[in-house]
Amino acid sequence: MKYYVGIDIGGTNIKTGIVDELGQIISEDSVPTGADRPQEVVLQDIIASVKASISKANVSPAAAGMGSPGSIDSNKGIVIRNYNLGWKDFAIAPAMSEALGIPVTLENDADAAALGEVVAGCAKGAKSAMIITLGTGVGSGYVLNGKIFRGCEFGHMVIVHGGLECTCGRKGCFEAYCSATGLIRTTSENGITEDDGSVNGRTVFDAAENGNKVAEKLIDEYIEYLACGLANLINGLQPEVIGIGGGIAKQGERLFAPLREKVKREVFGGFTLPRIVGCTLGYKAGLIGAAMAGRSLAD
Amino acid sequence: MKYYVGIDIGGTNIKTGIVDELGQIISEDSVPTGADRPQEVVLQDIIASVKASISKANVSPAAAGMGSPGSIDSNKGIVIRNYNLGWKDFAIAPAMSEALGIPVTLENDADAAALGEVVAGCAKGAKSAMIITLGTGVGSGYVLNGKIFRGCEFGHMVIVHGGLECTCGRKGCFEAYCSATGLIRTTSENGITEDDGSVNGRTVFDAAENGNKVAEKLIDEYIEYLACGLANLINGLQPEVIGIGGGIAKQGERLFAPLREKVKREVFGGFTLPRIVGCTLGYKAGLIGAAMAGRSLAD
Repeated sequence: MKYYVGIDIGGTNIKTGIVDELGQIISEDSVPTGADRPQEVVLQDIIASVKASISKANVSPAAAGMGSPGSIDSNKGIVIRNYNLGWKDFAIAPAMSEALGIPVTLENDADAAALGEVVAGCAKGAKSAMIITLGTGVGSGYVLNGKIFRGCEFGHMVIVHGGLECTCGRKGCFEAYCSATGLIRTTSENGITEDDGSVNGRTVFDAAENGNKVAEKLIDEYIEYLACGLANLINGLQPEVIGIGGGIAKQGERLFAPLREKVKREVFGGFTLPRIVGCTLGYKAGLIGAAMAGRSLAD
Repeated sequence: MKYYVGIDIGGTNIKTGIVDELGQIISEDSVPTGADRPQEVVLQDIIASVKASISKANVSPAAAGMGSPGSIDSNKGIVIRNYNLGWKDFAIAPAMSEALGIPVTLENDADAAALGEVVAGCAKGAKSAMIITLGTGVGSGYVLNGKIFRGCEFGHMVIVHGGLECTCGRKGCFEAYCSATGLIRTTSENGITEDDGSVNGRTVFDAAENGNKVAEKLIDEYIEYLACGLANLINGLQPEVIGIGGGIAKQGERLFAPLREKVKREVFGGFTLPRIVGCTLGYKAGLIGAAMAGRSLAD
């Protein structure tokens, strides 16, 4: 059995761990990201955490992979810019590689999580899978023949020409309609709130369950747009599995059952409907996927 | 040098030829498709034409590839249904393979043409290319690492949710807005015609050149939708080259120059703009690409 280091860089914590070649986590460690400190100092913390993970697992890892948010250059292993963490032109993969004495790859965090789901989660064994994350934005991670297809940003696919403004500058993006942010905005605009006046991604689903007709209609429209975006991806790429993650995916079959029905009607004649399922690994997807990206490097 | 048979099945003619491993056509032959005859009879004509091509080139081909319209099963080498030709459950690739004594692959005709452009045309040497054909429909052929990505139908990607009806049953597809058919319909609806009252894909461009302001506006809108679809593909897949073929592409820079400008504004932050160019091989793309698909089989 071979072992790999996974490193998942988040806004609050950086998780490290040892993952075996089957995608099982053997040991884990975590350090606060401490975004207020210089990137070189954070680097030392990550190295210490990786060494702790290695020591707990008591194995010699063959390679390491990191998943990072922000704009990155995977070929050079550089985080070009991460505003949340205050990182700039941070050659983190080469630095980690020197410290650990093994090859280290750097991937986008959503891409790493998608690979995790394909190795050990909802899309296990799929030759091609699209992992769609319904969170602050709409993330898309595409894994083809066991490898990350880098830089897949289908969240910024326009589905409503001239529609709602998106953070990217375009109008009518999939993300503008299907992110949790988009759903929360629509919920709020329609006067549906929690008892304390707040709105979150569950609010509209709970209201519908309590018989609110407007909420039902909003959910139907939300799923309509989601189906439109997914059918576009199926017509273009025919992934074997579409895995849905992020906050909204917690609704489970309340979301997936009507979604599958709507997608079915929009898929191009003769095409097989992919399995549309919820992601299963949660936060572990990023850690496992990062390690498995490291495995690709060592292979 | 190795040689391959290319077979391009069209509605009017079936072209056959010998193509070398660099994608150069060595010999060509053609037979009328004769759609009114049984498929077994047409098969004998194709075999005779291939033998004529082989004889002219005086080489021993290592494999053959066929490009066919209609719904096909590439894995089994079967044309499931081709309404125009009256073909049904036609195991054409196995039959050809038996007759020629070499492996034969069957691909979608648009996919084969896309591979032709990547081997020897506008996208020569590109690691990834999307070939978009603006004809009766909007065809999309995606070639990744020198191989056809089968069954890519981005023409049926909705870009205007709830928009114009498409032949596929969805509303607002890329194809409904950007096919030659779509452009001709819009031209006609706006009362712009040729002197004899007819309308074709050039009509609106010629009218604009003659100072027709409505025609200018229609072209601008057409390019706007085309840019929207292409930007979606770039944000999702970042192809190195986008090759534009089909009747409308004959407009050349009258189309491409404003298209590049519009696409640039819609591409996701930090992404490199692919080369957007016209296809260069014309009808030869299908023949060359089919042969090169055969090469993939023999490799």
